Amino acid sequence: MSHYNLALIGFGNVGKAFARLLLSKQDSLKADYEISFAVTAITTGSHGSAIDAEGIDLEKAIDLVESGGSLDELSTTVVPENMVSLLKAAQAQVLFENTPVSYDSGQPAIDTIKAALNNGIHAVTANKGPVVHAYQELTELAEANNVRFYFESTVMDGAPVFSLGRSGLPAAKVLAFKGVLNSTTNLILSQMEGGQSFDEAVAYAQSIGIAETDPSGDVDGWDAAIKVAALMTVLMGIPMNPDAVDRKGIGEISSAEIEAAQQEGKRWKLVCSAERHDGHVHASVAPEMVGPESPLFIIDGTTSIVQLETDVLGKLSLIEEDPGPHTTAYGLLADFINAVSSN
Amino acid sequence: MSHYNLALIGFGNVGKAFARLLLSKQDSLKADYEISFAVTAITTGSHGSAIDAEGIDLEKAIDLVESGGSLDELSTTVVPENMVSLLKAAQAQVLFENTPVSYDSGQPAIDTIKAALNNGIHAVTANKGPVVHAYQELTELAEANNVRFYFESTVMDGAPVFSLGRSGLPAAKVLAFKGVLNSTTNLILSQMEGGQSFDEAVAYAQSIGIAETDPSGDVDGWDAAIKVAALMTVLMGIPMNPDAVDRKGIGEISSAEIEAAQQEGKRWKLVCSAERHDGHVHASVAPEMVGPESPLFIIDGTTSIVQLETDVLGKLSLIEEDPGPHTTAYGLLADFINAVSSN
Repeated sequence: MSHYNLALIGFGNVGKAFARLLLSKQDSLKADYEISFAVTAITTGSHGSAIDAEGIDLEKAIDLVESGGSLDELSTTVVPENMVSLLKAAQAQVLFENTPVSYDSGQPAIDTIKAALNNGIHAVTANKGPVVHAYQELTELAEANNVRFYFESTVMDGAPVFSLGRSGLPAAKVLAFKGVLNSTTNLILSQMEGGQSFDEAVAYAQSIGIAETDPSGDVDGWDAAIKVAALMTVLMGIPMNPDAVDRKGIGEISSAEIEAAQQEGKRWKLVCSAERHDGHVHASVAPEMVGPESPLFIIDGTTSIVQLETDVLGKLSLIEEDPGPHTTAYGLLADFINAVSSN
Repeated sequence: MSHYNLALIGFGNVGKAFARLLLSKQDSLKADYEISFAVTAITTGSHGSAIDAEGIDLEKAIDLVESGGSLDELSTTVVPENMVSLLKAAQAQVLFENTPVSYDSGQPAIDTIKAALNNGIHAVTANKGPVVHAYQELTELAEANNVRFYFESTVMDGAPVFSLGRSGLPAAKVLAFKGVLNSTTNLILSQMEGGQSFDEAVAYAQSIGIAETDPSGDVDGWDAAIKVAALMTVLMGIPMNPDAVDRKGIGEISSAEIEAAQQEGKRWKLVCSAERHDGHVHASVAPEMVGPESPLFIIDGTTSIVQLETDVLGKLSLIEEDPGPHTTAYGLLADFINAVSSN
């Protein structure tokens, strides 16, 4: 049995879902993977923080945060401001970084992850920022310290996209991919097909908690471009900044165009794509009319898909239905198991 | 660099495609996996056999077999009849079993694989027979000898179905799956949607080399039932014999029924499914009308799909387009890399 101390930096919807999943899977981790764990640090932005090197009671932590209390009362020590000191006080072996992050800089997530890796601590995140802005640096830092930097949940939640690229297709070369990777825009387009106006569809997506108050990051294709950059960087080995992705959002698609596509038996999708041919690389996010000959055609609402073109197989697609915080949490759990099992 | 001697038992379309893939990937295996190899044995049913412990020239072997010659001339020694003696003479570390196999008994593949595993040799096969009839026994034998028994190519060719279940979804429990797993019947149904009669569609599938002269193994759902049994055994950990799969083929679907489904916006598919609920297990192969809300709806011609229901994610689907001997060969290569990398 190997024992690991876990530090949860950030304890919002994803962090809490991860804590619940850890509780429900602790017996199976012991039985099937010989892994035991204690969560020895939890930090939040507005609900206090706790360190207990003997292990924090996760049920209590969830209850406290959900009832508006503070984690401070669970702490056996003063929680250091400095991340390195915090991780040392928690005697952490695995960091889970799930705090609000700036898309532009990837901070503070990048610095938090560096603090972990530099001290021989595995780092797992559901934040895209660190992957997009510092994948190469963080991966090299992890290797130098004989630990892992994993981020399965950043694209298609817990669906094993990155692990497929890392180990599921050995000796295969990814030549190109296509996908529908942004739930909000796909939901908006699906609602417009049902007769809603663009504004009504946005309002609906907001009302069910999918779209943010300012939906422009999704609607303008920015979130999708970040995902394209992350997939291209990791699956194709081509470092790419999201700014370099040709990007067009769904704002200009009219209800009339949606209807015209339907009459042709087609659907508008915000298509992510990337390819390399003879050393030339191209990545884009743009609305496309898709027919039923493509698996992208049936991607409804918040479902997502990535279709890989490799040198060894026909097109291979992965589809994830019904995403949510619990599926993001599963990506973190898979990263944890894969990270500690890979040494 | 680790060096492996490979024995190819069977050298038909799949064996030759595998030899070509080995040639094209030998540099990448060295550079990315520190694996070098020599094929030290090749046996065929009607084109002779060869053993050369220094390595057989694969280009020559392919040319000889394709021009109707005999591999005997490449052999540096008399090829033993007995499999154990043969593998020893070849100093093999990995066996690739791809000979014609009896669906009813899984022989001679099972005995060939046992000979390898008993002697500490990894065994890889694209034949379903050994998985269906002896998965438990062969897997235990492999474990006892600290080697691997892998068979990625038996379902959906080289698509990573089994490796997804083995390592891609750690700590996940597969509760159920659905799929379209038999290319021949799916092609026949697709052709019938295009207006062909059942007999015309079968003749077409035969003319392009997809259906066999006697298509009953596919049409009656037997091939699909074998795949359901293999997936259930491996992904769900429930040993199942294909005879225990409720099975109904596509023979009774009329052109009128196909057309009626189309008019409803649906399609007939030969659906493979399995589920467990509260200890109760059920597996079936049966024609079903599928609507566009399911990813099975867009599976055309020889494309295949498996949709997994787990306890941790929403439904997760894997779709493989354009299968062929080269994609089956890729499954063998992936098994080879995974087997020798897993120790």
